[in-house]
Amino acid sequence: MATPFDDDKLHDECGIFGIYNHDDASAHVALGLHALQHRGQEACGIVTVDDNQFYIKRALGLVDDTFGDKKTIESLKGKSGIGHNRYATTGETHLRNVQPLHVDMDFGGFAVAHNGNLTNAMTIKKELVSRGAIFQSTSDTEVIVHLVALSQKKTVQDRIIDAMTQIKGAYSLVILLKDSVIGLRDPNGIRPLVLGKLAKGHVLASESCALDIIGADYVREIKPGEMVTLTKKGVISQFPFAKKPSKFCIFEYIYFARPDSFMENRSVYEMRKRIGEELAREAPVTGADLVVPVPDSGVPSAIGYAQESGVPFELGIIRNHYVGRTFIEPSDHIRHLGVKLKHNANRAYLKGKKVVLIDDSIVRGTTSRKIVEMVRAAGATEVHMRISSPPTTHSCFYGIDTPRTEELLAHSKTVGEICKFIRADSLAYISIDGLYRAVDNVKRDAKNPQFCDACFTGDYAVELVDNINHCGGDKVSVLSERKKS
Amino acid sequence: MATPFDDDKLHDECGIFGIYNHDDASAHVALGLHALQHRGQEACGIVTVDDNQFYIKRALGLVDDTFGDKKTIESLKGKSGIGHNRYATTGETHLRNVQPLHVDMDFGGFAVAHNGNLTNAMTIKKELVSRGAIFQSTSDTEVIVHLVALSQKKTVQDRIIDAMTQIKGAYSLVILLKDSVIGLRDPNGIRPLVLGKLAKGHVLASESCALDIIGADYVREIKPGEMVTLTKKGVISQFPFAKKPSKFCIFEYIYFARPDSFMENRSVYEMRKRIGEELAREAPVTGADLVVPVPDSGVPSAIGYAQESGVPFELGIIRNHYVGRTFIEPSDHIRHLGVKLKHNANRAYLKGKKVVLIDDSIVRGTTSRKIVEMVRAAGATEVHMRISSPPTTHSCFYGIDTPRTEELLAHSKTVGEICKFIRADSLAYISIDGLYRAVDNVKRDAKNPQFCDACFTGDYAVELVDNINHCGGDKVSVLSERKKS
Amino acid sequence: MATPFDDDKLHDECGIFGIYNHDDASAHVALGLHALQHRGQEACGIVTVDDNQFYIKRALGLVDDTFGDKKTIESLKGKSGIGHNRYATTGETHLRNVQPLHVDMDFGGFAVAHNGNLTNAMTIKKELVSRGAIFQSTSDTEVIVHLVALSQKKTVQDRIIDAMTQIKGAYSLVILLKDSVIGLRDPNGIRPLVLGKLAKGHVLASESCALDIIGADYVREIKPGEMVTLTKKGVISQFPFAKKPSKFCIFEYIYFARPDSFMENRSVYEMRKRIGEELAREAPVTGADLVVPVPDSGVPSAIGYAQESGVPFELGIIRNHYVGRTFIEPSDHIRHLGVKLKHNANRAYLKGKKVVLIDDSIVRGTTSRKIVEMVRAAGATEVHMRISSPPTTHSCFYGIDTPRTEELLAHSKTVGEICKFIRADSLAYISIDGLYRAVDNVKRDAKNPQFCDACFTGDYAVELVDNINHCGGDKVSVLSERKKS
Amino acid sequence: MATPFDDDKLHDECGIFGIYNHDDASAHVALGLHALQHRGQEACGIVTVDDNQFYIKRALGLVDDTFGDKKTIESLKGKSGIGHNRYATTGETHLRNVQPLHVDMDFGGFAVAHNGNLTNAMTIKKELVSRGAIFQSTSDTEVIVHLVALSQKKTVQDRIIDAMTQIKGAYSLVILLKDSVIGLRDPNGIRPLVLGKLAKGHVLASESCALDIIGADYVREIKPGEMVTLTKKGVISQFPFAKKPSKFCIFEYIYFARPDSFMENRSVYEMRKRIGEELAREAPVTGADLVVPVPDSGVPSAIGYAQESGVPFELGIIRNHYVGRTFIEPSDHIRHLGVKLKHNANRAYLKGKKVVLIDDSIVRGTTSRKIVEMVRAAGATEVHMRISSPPTTHSCFYGIDTPRTEELLAHSKTVGEICKFIRADSLAYISIDGLYRAVDNVKRDAKNPQFCDACFTGDYAVELVDNINHCGGDKVSVLSERKKS
Repeated sequence: MATPFDDDKLHDECGIFGIYNHDDASAHVALGLHALQHRGQEACGIVTVDDNQFYIKRALGLVDDTFGDKKTIESLKGKSGIGHNRYATTGETHLRNVQPLHVDMDFGGFAVAHNGNLTNAMTIKKELVSRGAIFQSTSDTEVIVHLVALSQKKTVQDRIIDAMTQIKGAYSLVILLKDSVIGLRDPNGIRPLVLGKLAKGHVLASESCALDIIGADYVREIKPGEMVTLTKKGVISQFPFAKKPSKFCIFEYIYFARPDSFMENRSVYEMRKRIGEELAREAPVTGADLVVPVPDSGVPSAIGYAQESGVPFELGIIRNHYVGRTFIEPSDHIRHLGVKLKHNANRAYLKGKKVVLIDDSIVRGTTSRKIVEMVRAAGATEVHMRISSPPTTHSCFYGIDTPRTEELLAHSKTVGEICKFIRADSLAYISIDGLYRAVDNVKRDAKNPQFCDACFTGDYAVELVDNINHCGGDKVSVLSERKKS
Repeated sequence: MATPFDDDKLHDECGIFGIYNHDDASAHVALGLHALQHRGQEACGIVTVDDNQFYIKRALGLVDDTFGDKKTIESLKGKSGIGHNRYATTGETHLRNVQPLHVDMDFGGFAVAHNGNLTNAMTIKKELVSRGAIFQSTSDTEVIVHLVALSQKKTVQDRIIDAMTQIKGAYSLVILLKDSVIGLRDPNGIRPLVLGKLAKGHVLASESCALDIIGADYVREIKPGEMVTLTKKGVISQFPFAKKPSKFCIFEYIYFARPDSFMENRSVYEMRKRIGEELAREAPVTGADLVVPVPDSGVPSAIGYAQESGVPFELGIIRNHYVGRTFIEPSDHIRHLGVKLKHNANRAYLKGKKVVLIDDSIVRGTTSRKIVEMVRAAGATEVHMRISSPPTTHSCFYGIDTPRTEELLAHSKTVGEICKFIRADSLAYISIDGLYRAVDNVKRDAKNPQFCDACFTGDYAVELVDNINHCGGDKVSVLSERKKS
Repeated sequence: MATPFDDDKLHDECGIFGIYNHDDASAHVALGLHALQHRGQEACGIVTVDDNQFYIKRALGLVDDTFGDKKTIESLKGKSGIGHNRYATTGETHLRNVQPLHVDMDFGGFAVAHNGNLTNAMTIKKELVSRGAIFQSTSDTEVIVHLVALSQKKTVQDRIIDAMTQIKGAYSLVILLKDSVIGLRDPNGIRPLVLGKLAKGHVLASESCALDIIGADYVREIKPGEMVTLTKKGVISQFPFAKKPSKFCIFEYIYFARPDSFMENRSVYEMRKRIGEELAREAPVTGADLVVPVPDSGVPSAIGYAQESGVPFELGIIRNHYVGRTFIEPSDHIRHLGVKLKHNANRAYLKGKKVVLIDDSIVRGTTSRKIVEMVRAAGATEVHMRISSPPTTHSCFYGIDTPRTEELLAHSKTVGEICKFIRADSLAYISIDGLYRAVDNVKRDAKNPQFCDACFTGDYAVELVDNINHCGGDKVSVLSERKKS
Repeated sequence: MATPFDDDKLHDECGIFGIYNHDDASAHVALGLHALQHRGQEACGIVTVDDNQFYIKRALGLVDDTFGDKKTIESLKGKSGIGHNRYATTGETHLRNVQPLHVDMDFGGFAVAHNGNLTNAMTIKKELVSRGAIFQSTSDTEVIVHLVALSQKKTVQDRIIDAMTQIKGAYSLVILLKDSVIGLRDPNGIRPLVLGKLAKGHVLASESCALDIIGADYVREIKPGEMVTLTKKGVISQFPFAKKPSKFCIFEYIYFARPDSFMENRSVYEMRKRIGEELAREAPVTGADLVVPVPDSGVPSAIGYAQESGVPFELGIIRNHYVGRTFIEPSDHIRHLGVKLKHNANRAYLKGKKVVLIDDSIVRGTTSRKIVEMVRAAGATEVHMRISSPPTTHSCFYGIDTPRTEELLAHSKTVGEICKFIRADSLAYISIDGLYRAVDNVKRDAKNPQFCDACFTGDYAVELVDNINHCGGDKVSVLSERKKS
């Protein structure tokens, strides 16, 4: 879904996968990562283990490019393994930041893959470094590794619990040990993690679509604050941390997750349609001729909007599926042509029409402006933009790549001003209450919201320690860009 | 649209593009090829020319990978250029087969890019070789080059006409000379070619979507048998060949072209919707709950079917956009999982439903069977397959990569047998007459069909010389696989 | 021996190898090319043939890099094969110029590898092009291929003879046919070619050192104007061309050939020593302390000089064996350091000494100047340069990469002037008569020299047709640079 | 000098280089490493520093391949830098083991390059790991880094001293800090390190030949146990460790160092000649016709032997300079041909001769046997092998890659048995006393030898802590293979 060229989206983060005790462990991890490719395209890695040793392969690029050949898969021996997809954050990427991380310890090695963001990683790292610890990467996942290494507990499991007790933030982890695979979600359950079952062996994955690809049955979600250990004796569940209220990331429903995934027993596709329906009720367009999605993420909401409003759904914008990474530094001339590398107007259906455009979010607004312009240039008489999320006003510090708060269009502009900026005839976002209605049939509890919706409200569920310590308490710092994993 | 993994589609052929007298010639050719990427993903090439020389760059792989960087674009100097996308035919690909072909001649060099297939190329080649000509490639385009070289005419234009007079088949050509760019369509106009206009300079392209990307205005189609020469004085039109009835490839409307392109002044997207509507009238499904497209090519027809039938349109199958080339040789286990690398069922919407599946064609049937199975496994109670083309019963010899006639499921099986093979509850194809109605509002003229529809009817518009000469007159030989360009 | 960095040498040309009827054909060709690597480092290629087809692999770079792995060797099937090493001429190198050339013909395919240079290739090519022939490369070897293709003779052997009868120049060829391997030397026998024998099967090679590496016995030289055909029945010898006087390239003895090779039954190493001895007699240095070779090519002559003069031989200059290609575009600063990348003075032995430096030739003189300076800077009190060839005054048109005549230092400067230019205390070259004495114990026959020594005398053994036709009769044109093979 | 194919040599170890305060710092480090390439061909790396940050580039392969282009050199900014060449030890090579190592510390970052081997690294590492330290590489250099990081001293200099005080073994180090470059030799001075001076700035290098290439003047050797700091104020010298007797590695004179280098004010070339002369006196061959070196390392000793004995020196074996890495996995057939890839007999000079072959050492004996056989096959009537070192009976643990003691031919076989094994007519090694005479004009002090000669005598100068701790006191363990740097 993400392409780096002129892409005005918030971006997930990472995808993780783990499997215990299966003959085709590495092939299954590769397939799981393939299904989770939308959660990170920058880099990927797999670590497996057999009775003798750990096998590691990490590389920049897509899963298919690194793990598509038999030889690589066969070189990753053993019956258990974990994998990780990494999103392309801005700035240089170093292979040393690619996960899973692996270390050899006195008590035996382990490997860890992490989806999320730790909010006190920099604070802990600073202290560890002052005590002589040596860090190799800029990834906050390495902080976890050091805390495990330094723990005085006896078993690895206890060391992990000891380490994670010191850590704040949003995280779902899969950890590979010689004789088990561990899955772990932060106490608020911000990032997803599901458990699946094969005829033989269990799997863990960020989304249920990764279970489908390997034919695994969906068992259940790992619960907020839960640690599960896949062992020979079965799945052992623990809740080692202080209980906290559930704060699942509501943006997973809006954009990040694949529509065929289920999260918290909800169909992502259905949630998107319901948001579209709610949007049609909240912000109808009188006399509209067409409902047109901005492909591909706007499609389910556009179908919902169309069905609720009775206005026909049409593919008024056609997407080019062959957008590579290499036009990243185009000449000024091509940059000007910009958006057309990815989208083209379907003139036949837009000419003379009053169009409702459905998109999932507006981050900086530059792409929206080009799309409105393109639709208008194709002959549309009116262009009404409807957004299937509330205005994005705050940065995320829990594992989503967002611009700094100041760079968010909705942080400083009203809806009317944004409408003017993107040159639409009208603009409406779904309301935060409408969003809660669509997803959960409930009213948002302002004192203790049922989801993490900080990007829309600024209500940060987990303390932003690093920001307070290192940035004078300004919640909207640059940190998030550097510590994504 | 095409991915090599378990892909049961007929495949286009090639995309061509030419530009005359523009400061950003090479960048525009690259953009044009980018927009035409769906017509060929195996290889691509650009040749440009300035006052001094020709500049050539050809490579295996996608346009963005080869021509995405500034340095390459800048190395292709000059104000005129042509480009070519090539489809991955079976068998080994040699760089020497990648187009455009370029030769230095006594009278000055030229370069040529070809979309189509010549039906007497092998016969001519055999004769030329016996007279001492040396061929470097297995591409039939090289036959054109040799005939031009051997012509005794004075000007290159006359040499080209001389050469093409000897050639039979389906072809659209763009030819780059030092001081002009030539566009040419075969007398039946089987393959497409359009003329566009920029503020400064003209362009030629296989489809109009390649005009949109560079902001060029659509001027008109090159007519069957027409040769246009873009020169400093403007566009010169000639009709050097004996006139023949127009026979445009009707499959371009069904599958090959991009939906945002116009062909013969018809919107491709609209044609597909109309076919879907016709299909809904011809082959309704009583009591259906959902109309589900096989993504992505089935979407427009599914929207048409849904709108005509009143049955809701839903994305019941979700496509993974990150399907690379590297899983081409997977282990048996992964091969078994096969189709899921690309598609996943959207369980939430299929469970307990009576589903109408819309696809554009069935070639070998293996993929259709897997998709029906996947939809059923997701809980659908009934699966009714509707196909937006008539049964594909014959190989194409005019530039489309088709299996041999014997390998086509519909060649030897009835619709009922195919339905059984793919395990659907019912199966219907649009009728050939329904197809003509949808596209042209006319009845098919059986004696002289208004389109080339040989793949559905066996009525081959152009004599298959090579087959008669080399294959004992069997029209359905293996030749087509070897000579695609 | 050749390194591209600041290398002031004439350069060979090419190395060729052929084998008939051996189970390990491709491995043996690779080994033969490995032993002949000094004759060309730019590119290499092997073509083999079995009962079904030809197998081709050509690449830029060294033999070991392209043919060092088992998989490549095994992919080159069949019991017969030929190979070619190509020297890096100036200017851009295209893979299409890499040999062996292979073509499919009506009468069956063949492949050819060529060492030498044709002096009427451009003239013939021009005529062929005007008649419609299409050339793919700028290599003069392609002219041979076209002449064979156009010949009206029936057998390939006769076609080859027909073609070569029209060609002038210096050439040794190995040609691979389905059922035989042909070796051919031009009527003057300018370039070398030897025949060897394995327990099973025969081989052809540019030098005998390529027989040693595979354990083949040396049989004999192919004679000037001889064509040998290796067949199942044995080795067939023909002399199809008009007899001409033998004109073996005398520079092979001085520099090009490997010292462990035999040519015309003479040990190359011994010839070099004898030249050194002759040089010691012709140009002694009174009171010299050391004889120091410029490594590595000056070593045998320096040993000869030392033994004859009684002055001790010492490695006063140490060579760095790890000089890669990549310092080719260094900064000005490093360019200034220049020669030291390759050589370093052995200070301990040069300080306070009167040194005789032995090198094989001076082409442009820039390197010699730096070496003299380096030896002096290391403390030598006097530096006397002795050269084991006469002054190089004329370009070679017979397969050696030489600068244009005007660029040769000795073309316009006297020995005294050159001595001044390189800043030596004295300079002497061996005389042309001394050279003949050393190599052949005879006086040079001025009317009909026993060797080709045109680079020293301007007596060109074979007519320079292209120069006369295309360059107004100026014998010292730029042609040689473009047509080396 | 080293090529991986069938190479029966002991191998150095590593080359290091450092420069302080020069405008062309990175280019000079690259040139220094180029001159030191013989000390390690597996990998190389450069770290530089400017006022803002450290710049790092490390790669597998040769210096020229990694650092030959301007762009890479320019990307390594700053006026100070260090570099490292690494030898290809057996087993897999990981980029993470390539030096220089760099770490960011609380007190500022530093980088370190190491030549040598630490004999208590594994013991220290084990303890550090048990305390929670995380190691990324298997290189013993990382132990130094951890000790520096954990030190409680204030300045980096004091932390380094604190760290090195805990370490035993052979080491020469160059360390890059923000504002200085440090050079350090172990208290016994086993590995070399020299100081040089440019017009502006100082340099440190393993050998003086690296000073020559950049035109630096030789200043002096760093003394055993000395730590020099290159700063703005000049060169500061300290002796922070307990004084120990000097034990310079005598094998540097025999084989490792380049002949044009000076070590301890001795010319390496001269030492080799003197060893050859001593060998001629100790082990003459009556009636010998030729003295032939095994190229290239045997040449200086062969010249010495020839001059002392009066027997003519000839290049009876010719070396192929183009031996790449890619024939590493040849077929059995080629493996059998083996040695000829690198060497060929110069038949012309060997036939009927009584030959004295000079080589520097025999490790496993397999190559020697092939060379004797090759010389004999070329017609030599007698082959007498003379070796310019004493029998190699013990493994090295101080930075030289040696087989395990049990694998050394001389460990279990007498000279007579070895002679039989290599099938020579006679065999003699220089005596240990002869070696001392040649190098130092002294008698070896058996109680406290003037050099480290453990590989010939088993007198290990520095305690082998790891061996005692981990291998039950067996001095000849496998450790050495794993910890080379």
